[in-house]
Amino acid sequence: MGYKVEARSMEISMEDEDSRKKRKKGLNLPKKMKKILRNLWNVGKEDPRRVIHALKVGVALTLVSLLYLMEPFFEGVGKNALWAVMTVVVVLEFSAGATLRKGLNRGLGTLIAGSLAFFIEWVAIHSGKILGGIFIGTSVFTIGSMITYMRFIPYIKKNYDYGMLVFLLTFNLITVSSYRVDTVIKIAHERLYTIGMGIGICLFMSLLFFPIWSGDDLHKSTITKLQGLSRCIEACVSEYFEEKLKDNETSDSESDDEDLIYNGYNTVLDSKSADEALAMYAKWEPRHTRRCNKFPSQQYIKVGSVLRKFGYTVVALHGCLQTEIQTPRSIRILFKDPCVRLAGEICKVLSELSESIQNRRHCSLEILSDSLEAALKDLNSTIKSQPKLFLGSNLHSNITNKHLNGHVSYYNETNSNGTVSYHNDNNTNGCVLGETIEENDTVSPLPLNSVVSLSSLRSVKKSAPTGEKRRLRKQLSKIAVMKSLEFSEALPFAAFASLLVEMVARLDTVIDEVEELGTIACFKEYDKTVEVRIENRLI
Amino acid sequence: MGYKVEARSMEISMEDEDSRKKRKKGLNLPKKMKKILRNLWNVGKEDPRRVIHALKVGVALTLVSLLYLMEPFFEGVGKNALWAVMTVVVVLEFSAGATLRKGLNRGLGTLIAGSLAFFIEWVAIHSGKILGGIFIGTSVFTIGSMITYMRFIPYIKKNYDYGMLVFLLTFNLITVSSYRVDTVIKIAHERLYTIGMGIGICLFMSLLFFPIWSGDDLHKSTITKLQGLSRCIEACVSEYFEEKLKDNETSDSESDDEDLIYNGYNTVLDSKSADEALAMYAKWEPRHTRRCNKFPSQQYIKVGSVLRKFGYTVVALHGCLQTEIQTPRSIRILFKDPCVRLAGEICKVLSELSESIQNRRHCSLEILSDSLEAALKDLNSTIKSQPKLFLGSNLHSNITNKHLNGHVSYYNETNSNGTVSYHNDNNTNGCVLGETIEENDTVSPLPLNSVVSLSSLRSVKKSAPTGEKRRLRKQLSKIAVMKSLEFSEALPFAAFASLLVEMVARLDTVIDEVEELGTIACFKEYDKTVEVRIENRLI
Repeated sequence: MGYKVEARSMEISMEDEDSRKKRKKGLNLPKKMKKILRNLWNVGKEDPRRVIHALKVGVALTLVSLLYLMEPFFEGVGKNALWAVMTVVVVLEFSAGATLRKGLNRGLGTLIAGSLAFFIEWVAIHSGKILGGIFIGTSVFTIGSMITYMRFIPYIKKNYDYGMLVFLLTFNLITVSSYRVDTVIKIAHERLYTIGMGIGICLFMSLLFFPIWSGDDLHKSTITKLQGLSRCIEACVSEYFEEKLKDNETSDSESDDEDLIYNGYNTVLDSKSADEALAMYAKWEPRHTRRCNKFPSQQYIKVGSVLRKFGYTVVALHGCLQTEIQTPRSIRILFKDPCVRLAGEICKVLSELSESIQNRRHCSLEILSDSLEAALKDLNSTIKSQPKLFLGSNLHSNITNKHLNGHVSYYNETNSNGTVSYHNDNNTNGCVLGETIEENDTVSPLPLNSVVSLSSLRSVKKSAPTGEKRRLRKQLSKIAVMKSLEFSEALPFAAFASLLVEMVARLDTVIDEVEELGTIACFKEYDKTVEVRIENRLI
Repeated sequence: MGYKVEARSMEISMEDEDSRKKRKKGLNLPKKMKKILRNLWNVGKEDPRRVIHALKVGVALTLVSLLYLMEPFFEGVGKNALWAVMTVVVVLEFSAGATLRKGLNRGLGTLIAGSLAFFIEWVAIHSGKILGGIFIGTSVFTIGSMITYMRFIPYIKKNYDYGMLVFLLTFNLITVSSYRVDTVIKIAHERLYTIGMGIGICLFMSLLFFPIWSGDDLHKSTITKLQGLSRCIEACVSEYFEEKLKDNETSDSESDDEDLIYNGYNTVLDSKSADEALAMYAKWEPRHTRRCNKFPSQQYIKVGSVLRKFGYTVVALHGCLQTEIQTPRSIRILFKDPCVRLAGEICKVLSELSESIQNRRHCSLEILSDSLEAALKDLNSTIKSQPKLFLGSNLHSNITNKHLNGHVSYYNETNSNGTVSYHNDNNTNGCVLGETIEENDTVSPLPLNSVVSLSSLRSVKKSAPTGEKRRLRKQLSKIAVMKSLEFSEALPFAAFASLLVEMVARLDTVIDEVEELGTIACFKEYDKTVEVRIENRLI
């Protein structure tokens, strides 16, 4: 940019330019600083416990530094205090479970490695200087390769990876230094002692001062996922049936909706590794509530996996919104009410499940199940009442539902009167204008060819010219898409409805796992008074 | 088990029992050992590079131990050699990229922390013993909290997390020990020197001896994903249309198929975190081939994300196989050929893409695109020729396709002859016995109520009795499922077909990203001779 301005205004002196550049830099620097500061602020705002954790680490480090700084402590511990400092830096993690896991891994790794190293040292001492050296070298190679190889075993990688690393580290340090130093036993003893002190400070800070439990995080993330899915389904269905007449005005809220949908299912679909890490840490956490004996981390993982499977259906539903082939809005509108109702019932069940987990009580789904069933029936009967919609598009006649429902006599009359015409008008493209449709006059059916979804527009925008070949393929694929538009227009809607019904089926497995969770985690029994409240709300 | 046997045979003496127990233990121990050994063997068999990596670590550790064990080296380095050992243990990672990343992070972290620590030390020395101690304590707290907080920033967490940890470690060690030792500068200098040696050995082993490139892994995993998806779609479609008459005999191959399908899409869907890690390591890797300037790790990530989106459609397709509501097999069979053909074309495109990436050449999809289009048309016309299928199930008439295609006169004849009857027989449940169907007599249509899918059977098996409430809910939900079975039977098939068409649309974005990858990664131009070979194969 700067160079363009320069070229246009050659009369400006070099000094001026220099000062301008400086000013620009001066403007850029505060902007960058501002951005960094905003980033820092957001990190803390997202999860205030991060600030607490940072302060905890500061306090722990200061405490462990006192071993060095205060005379009486230093006399007792000596220079080995640096191992305590090292332990605190490495072991103190965000959550209590992670800290315990690392601390115990470090402690055990050091202890076992120390014992083995002493054995090696004993053999080395008794076999002379040169043979001893060779023996030490060989054992370093063997143990190093073996431990590294063992770290690839999935079970060990998952639970004891850090312990193995510490084992290797300690073993090598002790074995190698034992070759030159004779007081290795004393050093190792002191080192173990200071590492123990470091671990003690870590556990003290982690378990007693504002402890952060991974189990609670897992619990909360499960609730968030259920709520997200519920909002996502609601947004999907409302977007599917909403009218896109005011294109420009609603584009903002639309992209908001898209974000909501994406976030809704992405948090569920991407949760696998995060959930597994949380569950693994939670396994190490001691019981910290008066409720159950053990935190059912495995069951939370199961709920997560069932929710992911449910999420795939939501993604497919969202796919119906973005697909290249769309059922005309005029047809969709016919099924709006039952679909919205069914989706609403699904969302209600999801919300009830999330509330049940949040309040740690069993869920009562009998009432919701009834209305879910009613909504299913409703959709069913609406689809049945519009059978003509699922006819192929090559039959563009004005036959009404009534005819196909068996009123053949009426059909004959119309036919003999010659009012049935086979025209290829887009307005009646597979859409039947039966007398059951009141919205008929107000809805302006979109011509089929103009039904190009957001995603196809996006892909056209994205395609940069990268060679003739590509353009050719693009054209060819566009033709393919055009051809595919000739499919029965009801097909996409059928997929949409079928996915909604499929969702109800998958909801069953979600409910099963959440109830199982309730049983394992000793949730409270369902409260009757709440039930009455829900009943009232429904009436 | 052992106790039951014991209870039944009280006459057996205690001595006998003891010996039996011992024998059992003796049998169990080798079994366990065998299992562990098999596990170890499998870890190496899965990826033989693991064995190489383990040996590399062993060699590197032995090399670094020589600093201690050999007289001339030890005189030069002294006791600080332990920092080199520590560095090798911690820094040497599986892939070259990961090692470089850790090595550079460690080096930079140590260097910056050292500089800062010297400044703090200088201030502390010039402010007396007590004030200096307070100053050191304060700075340890401040820097500790700040660095820990900064580690939460996503960008830093992703790229420099280990560097921050090393910074904190080195800073604390130097600052604290400077309070007691006066020769800190010398110690720090030596330590930096030995750490540098350790990093050098790591890089030497990692980059020059059988280097393992993360970029290559990412490349291979992309190919595997494409092939997996292709196999998965093939298995899905063939399972959807296969006849399940010999239930017992095929159950084994069926579960094999299920495994194939699950693995096919699960490797794609679960790949996010693994891919991102590989891409991050690949970023640090130097150019190691004569091809492009830089490894396009970001584009591989994009291909992965597009493949995941494609994968969701495959999951939804698989959902069609498992859903509670199924289109009767007699109807499905009508669409078998075009569906299998379309799926075959999709698989061909996926295979071509994977081959294109594998051989690092641009792909030629013109020919495949043509046949994809033809397959789409074929499915389209087949669906159009069976319009009656998409009628509601409340109209169980024997009207043939011909009638609905405009042959009203024929319809009238039939009607006046009184041959059309509205019966509720399952055999004709929405299924039209047109003259185009040759398989008609051989197919024995299943009654609707017996169409219970695998998944529903599984869920019934799984449900353990956990309270009356749950059973009640189960019953209610079963009723809901039964009710939903009354839906138009063609609805699930419509979803299946629609998903296939949707797949073609999404395939487009996959092709786009793979071509983009080809452009960025400087793939070879497409070879004409191969083209001819494909053409021949197609003819």
